[in-house]
Amino acid sequence: MPRIAIVGFDRFTDIDLFLAWDLFSRVQVPGWKVEIVALTEQITSSTGIAITRHATLDTASSADAVYFASGDGSRDLAASPALRESLRLDPARQVLAAVDSGTLLLATLGHLRGMRATTYPGDELRDLITPHGVEVVQEALVTEGNIGTAAQCLAGVDLIHWVIARLVGEAEAERAIATARPL
Amino acid sequence: MPRIAIVGFDRFTDIDLFLAWDLFSRVQVPGWKVEIVALTEQITSSTGIAITRHATLDTASSADAVYFASGDGSRDLAASPALRESLRLDPARQVLAAVDSGTLLLATLGHLRGMRATTYPGDELRDLITPHGVEVVQEALVTEGNIGTAAQCLAGVDLIHWVIARLVGEAEAERAIATARPL
Repeated sequence: MPRIAIVGFDRFTDIDLFLAWDLFSRVQVPGWKVEIVALTEQITSSTGIAITRHATLDTASSADAVYFASGDGSRDLAASPALRESLRLDPARQVLAAVDSGTLLLATLGHLRGMRATTYPGDELRDLITPHGVEVVQEALVTEGNIGTAAQCLAGVDLIHWVIARLVGEAEAERAIATARPL
Repeated sequence: MPRIAIVGFDRFTDIDLFLAWDLFSRVQVPGWKVEIVALTEQITSSTGIAITRHATLDTASSADAVYFASGDGSRDLAASPALRESLRLDPARQVLAAVDSGTLLLATLGHLRGMRATTYPGDELRDLITPHGVEVVQEALVTEGNIGTAAQCLAGVDLIHWVIARLVGEAEAERAIATARPL
């Protein structure tokens, strides 16, 4: 019964969060559950879309997969002690994924140490992520074991595909994503 | 000062609406304004995401572009007299676009009569759209003059690109969409 937690926060990027939410919600497997988790009951995107979380951030610690959305607010969350206090993640038992500046959150939690990872291009994020022992590369999708990162919103499609495949197999991942792929 | 109205409704598909909202919001042109318009103050997606509209549905009648999102609820909106009562659209002065079952709304309003258009594949939508004098085809993107339709959520990217290009030129469309395209 796989449970997927999508980590949101204030000033998230709409596509990053809603693409994951929608595509993950297309999976048809008994017990499959997707939840948007956040520190606060309401989160507002950088463009002003306000939504209500489904569960508290700490519930991601027991999810089968944790998907970090991106957005300007990721820097504040990375700097907040609440991030480390709320999340006890473990790539030995969880699939961990991040798109764009979500990679900063995975790095801050220490899960990218000694690994290659990708993020939104530019100096700012590279300079924030590298000190966490990460080799930041410019690729659309980087996966190693149970950890995956993607660069630029729409690469989220391939990252989401990878997460689903890792949890319930390639066939269901392909079926779910195909319902959204251009004719 | 182009103004874009994205038409939402209860039981909209998340990707269809939020992809358009986010990508249109990336355009950097003086006076550019994007609004989610709907009959009701709150609309809830088919997966349960509730958001607040920016403006009433009728304000789309004076927008420079009207973009119809998709989703299960499009059938109810198409059957509602409020659709025709609220919207007075004119492709002579407006760019009109629709993704998936949003095509049913454009067809119901009579704007696709004698034209080719695409929609989410399957008999149900084709059978609903064809009686409005539309030749339903299976293509990712169909454009003719000021009217464009796209099939399957992620084809929305190309439809949104086309709308932006039509309003403010190819260069700005390419710049805006490139910020989301996979590395």
